[in-house]
Amino acid sequence: MAKFKNTGIVGLGLIGGSIALGMKKRRISEKITGFSRRPETLEKAKSQGLIDEYYTDFDEGLDGLDFLVLATPVDIIKEYFERIKKHGSKVLVTDVASVKEKICREAFDLLGPGNSFVPSHPMAGSEKSGMDQAMENLFENRYVIMTPGSDTGEKNLESVKGFWESLGAKTILMSPSEHDRMVGLTSHMPHLAVYCLISLLEKEAGPETLYKCLGTGFRDTTRIGKSSPSIWSEIFMANRDNLCFWIGEMEKSLEEMKSLLVKGSRKELESRLKSLRTIREKADEKN
Amino acid sequence: MAKFKNTGIVGLGLIGGSIALGMKKRRISEKITGFSRRPETLEKAKSQGLIDEYYTDFDEGLDGLDFLVLATPVDIIKEYFERIKKHGSKVLVTDVASVKEKICREAFDLLGPGNSFVPSHPMAGSEKSGMDQAMENLFENRYVIMTPGSDTGEKNLESVKGFWESLGAKTILMSPSEHDRMVGLTSHMPHLAVYCLISLLEKEAGPETLYKCLGTGFRDTTRIGKSSPSIWSEIFMANRDNLCFWIGEMEKSLEEMKSLLVKGSRKELESRLKSLRTIREKADEKN
Repeated sequence: MAKFKNTGIVGLGLIGGSIALGMKKRRISEKITGFSRRPETLEKAKSQGLIDEYYTDFDEGLDGLDFLVLATPVDIIKEYFERIKKHGSKVLVTDVASVKEKICREAFDLLGPGNSFVPSHPMAGSEKSGMDQAMENLFENRYVIMTPGSDTGEKNLESVKGFWESLGAKTILMSPSEHDRMVGLTSHMPHLAVYCLISLLEKEAGPETLYKCLGTGFRDTTRIGKSSPSIWSEIFMANRDNLCFWIGEMEKSLEEMKSLLVKGSRKELESRLKSLRTIREKADEKN
Repeated sequence: MAKFKNTGIVGLGLIGGSIALGMKKRRISEKITGFSRRPETLEKAKSQGLIDEYYTDFDEGLDGLDFLVLATPVDIIKEYFERIKKHGSKVLVTDVASVKEKICREAFDLLGPGNSFVPSHPMAGSEKSGMDQAMENLFENRYVIMTPGSDTGEKNLESVKGFWESLGAKTILMSPSEHDRMVGLTSHMPHLAVYCLISLLEKEAGPETLYKCLGTGFRDTTRIGKSSPSIWSEIFMANRDNLCFWIGEMEKSLEEMKSLLVKGSRKELESRLKSLRTIREKADEKN
């Protein structure tokens, strides 16, 4: 049985497109309505069966919806909350933004008490972006972090939780600030560190020779450096306080490693690397 | 036609085992003789067809060889050069060590002018180690960096070059110090940075929740953090001067990123990430 009658999805990139595909496949909504600024994206999404109908005018399509997923870039989400407010719609809304504190504060302030926004962030993605990369199983066995407000109703929370679970995901609750700090560490900081690693290549002369010295380790480690600069510059800016904190911690960690090297005790270094490997191995077990 | 009559391989881990497998498959040597300190490794290698015969006593097996590959950990290679010297053997030797300056200096000093050592470092590997991980195509299309001395004979150089090419690899020549600086950047520094990234997880409380926030980006980026602490503590120590230099450059790069964040220009940050992505994309093209 479908959970929703008419689900609107704003933004049909990797995440929005994968939500549409996954919902279609699992018949989670009787109808899926697409929204995008670009008519060609909507046309393509419809011809590929991701959506049933579409609107370029958000307000026009809003009325018929009983569920709305905002899968837009971080810095234009606010605009949609303003339109929802203006329109007076009470539709159940979730989002997929990678940064939560600012967005939740803005949305809850705008929409006021008794609003129907349940913030979400699926821990799924790829360095590839765009609708062509969409996968119907992108959320399977992935965690979705939900950051409800003090005012979020239990029924709405359960509906959005159920929505993610029906896509195969597991959900976890935390506060927006806890989310931004943790995800700043587990997702944003690795991206930033990878960009810094790549920048070291600039500092070495003879790029032709240098590229030949790149092994699979470098390639795998820096794969996420091929992610969209537009998406990631937005995320970095939106979470910059936490990132500055983690940059400081990363520098401390580099200094600790340097001390071990300078000290010259192979045994001590090996024991440090062993405990770090154990931490990394746990990351595989826990998922 | 086989290039060698009897090739000795010391150390039958991922690299040594893959060389044995690749040589067998391509019939590069009439016979392959294994050397290891552990009899059970040798017995296993023989029963799996990686080697034809084996010796636990290096000196005993040395006489019959016309080619010798030292695939041992970095810090015991010197021992083998001492034994070769003592034995008076003139066998053609190569190695696979990830750090070259120290090893080449020690070996060339020990063996003296007219020696038959041609140093190599194949840019191939995995975070997995041990003979069970050996792959016959590990070197296919990979670069092997060769760092001959001023005294290395042309014929020996060509023989070892031909050996790697027969395994499907491409070769490139540079000086040992150039190698250590470049590979310090392209291989050792990514490993070190990944260990530092992993160490940040220690600094955050609530590990159970934290592990749920780890996406595929973190996992892929830190995969090499599962590498052998024994192998990597050795490599880090052997190349510590270059690593300390690159740690300093990494810290500068983190500070530059922090300045961009603090400055708050999304546009400037995006343009910086764009140029870094271009550099990363080149790394795929160039191989």
